[in-house]
Amino acid sequence: MSKIRIGIVGYGNIGRGVEQAIKRNEDMELAAVFTRRDPASVKVATEGAKVVHMDDMLSMKGDVDVMVLCGGSATDLPVMGPELAANFNTIDSFDTHAKIPEYFANVDKAAKEGNNISIISVGWDPGMFSLNRLYAESILVQGSTYTFWGKGVSQGHSDAIRRIPGVKNAIQYTVPVDEAVDQVRSGSEPKLTTRDKHTRECYVVAQEGANKAEIENAIKTMPNYFDEYNTTVHFISEEELKRDHSKMPHGGFVIRTGETGEEGNKHVIEYSLKLDSNPEFTASVLIAYARAAYRLNQKGENGARSVFDIAPALLSMKTPEQLRKEIL
Amino acid sequence: MSKIRIGIVGYGNIGRGVEQAIKRNEDMELAAVFTRRDPASVKVATEGAKVVHMDDMLSMKGDVDVMVLCGGSATDLPVMGPELAANFNTIDSFDTHAKIPEYFANVDKAAKEGNNISIISVGWDPGMFSLNRLYAESILVQGSTYTFWGKGVSQGHSDAIRRIPGVKNAIQYTVPVDEAVDQVRSGSEPKLTTRDKHTRECYVVAQEGANKAEIENAIKTMPNYFDEYNTTVHFISEEELKRDHSKMPHGGFVIRTGETGEEGNKHVIEYSLKLDSNPEFTASVLIAYARAAYRLNQKGENGARSVFDIAPALLSMKTPEQLRKEIL
Repeated sequence: MSKIRIGIVGYGNIGRGVEQAIKRNEDMELAAVFTRRDPASVKVATEGAKVVHMDDMLSMKGDVDVMVLCGGSATDLPVMGPELAANFNTIDSFDTHAKIPEYFANVDKAAKEGNNISIISVGWDPGMFSLNRLYAESILVQGSTYTFWGKGVSQGHSDAIRRIPGVKNAIQYTVPVDEAVDQVRSGSEPKLTTRDKHTRECYVVAQEGANKAEIENAIKTMPNYFDEYNTTVHFISEEELKRDHSKMPHGGFVIRTGETGEEGNKHVIEYSLKLDSNPEFTASVLIAYARAAYRLNQKGENGARSVFDIAPALLSMKTPEQLRKEIL
Repeated sequence: MSKIRIGIVGYGNIGRGVEQAIKRNEDMELAAVFTRRDPASVKVATEGAKVVHMDDMLSMKGDVDVMVLCGGSATDLPVMGPELAANFNTIDSFDTHAKIPEYFANVDKAAKEGNNISIISVGWDPGMFSLNRLYAESILVQGSTYTFWGKGVSQGHSDAIRRIPGVKNAIQYTVPVDEAVDQVRSGSEPKLTTRDKHTRECYVVAQEGANKAEIENAIKTMPNYFDEYNTTVHFISEEELKRDHSKMPHGGFVIRTGETGEEGNKHVIEYSLKLDSNPEFTASVLIAYARAAYRLNQKGENGARSVFDIAPALLSMKTPEQLRKEIL
């Protein structure tokens, strides 16, 4: 059987994760890595793999079954998503929540015109966490759903700290508050504020001679990013940052509690992830959905989808018969 | 909008749970309860609800959108599943694992001939646990999946104890072994025997004058049911059994650990349920899938399905637009 040919668009952490995930899925192969840089300057981990400039993507039409878009949601995907959907099946991890309806509509239009399938907002949140919110609230109709993130590195918050004058480098961890998680698990359906649910831990390398008190104050009072949280700031050396904080762990919990029956019997549904590498795990989810996109397109379907629209069996290498026999 | 009309076939614990679940889903209504008993003798919880003898089910064709089959997997469903699939959309919780392929084939044939949709093996295991095994192994291709059940009442094991001479009544709890769960969560992918994973706790009411030592021995050495487990037996009074053991709690965990990338980064995916009432929760899952069956049939589809084949969005009362906006 011929393999599903995957194109990787953007070769950052997620792109490299997708490349690794392809190696672990025997029904797939890397068709090409697409980059904005000079292709000759990009060294990929797959021997003999093609590296192509993004301007020349259309030259690969017919050689790529699914493009996995590894660009950012802020500026890359809103443009690239619809453009590529017109020419290829695509998977992306678009996560600007407020703009999902608009993005979905734009991608849907392009994908239909191009007769392609595009699955948007794939990963773990949005993605697996969204699915678990959906399943849980469809089963326990009366109840409350809570999502906790962490402990894990937030790139957005780390970047925000790095932009403060006097900061040389920084890593920010989002940490769920144990008491809040326990309260939720108890089924009491508590009302929790932003501050109740998560704390923020910052590890900051200050520039020589910088005013640390000012930096700490600038972090803790930063609107939206930190001011609504209990935030702790630790100043460390560049060496310590490299040694202790160079991994990209993440994870979290989706918990729904609710009741059934006349007597209000309580139930707790919990989904949790504990990830050593956020980008590699995200990439593994993207690749599973790339398989689904390919299969749907082979069946003649087109248009945009989200994880909500994808029958789970489409994600697996196993046949429906195998799945029913082995894991149902 | 007209409501989805649900028929309940069999009015035991699950059937009563389905009746309660219908009350909590505003897009549904109870069409009728079908029973093998004298309908006049069956008192249902829904005022004015029809109770119809199973022999007269076909008289309700056209008045029921989905039949939820609440019979047992051993003898009821193998006959009833295909019979009803020929005439109605159906949902069942068939759980005789070894016979799923044969059962699926029989139901599929009947459902296709009748132009109906039948979703088999719905509940939490098989059901939500199966889905989580599928999602987790599709993402973490290299890894190991573990399922733990409990703490919860096993009807099959309780029944087995009740058949021992000298036993008046009994309840059996399946209990996951904490150390095994912890080992699995650590990502070490341990090889675990049946005995390592679960213990069995039995609460037994002996008949007046019965030999308790003999009963205990009969339980602990019972092939398949108990001999491969560490089993504890507690003799209690009928009053204690009623007071402390009349609920039907259950739950469990599906845990997959695996690795990604060149360096073998570790990940843990865990899904857990903690249920006050096993039959009411199972019924709530059945009803969510009844919605999906109805929608698929409205779209003109037919044949048998499992939870693996059902796009998650079909389970929700919310529209695809709402789902993308609110929980993606």
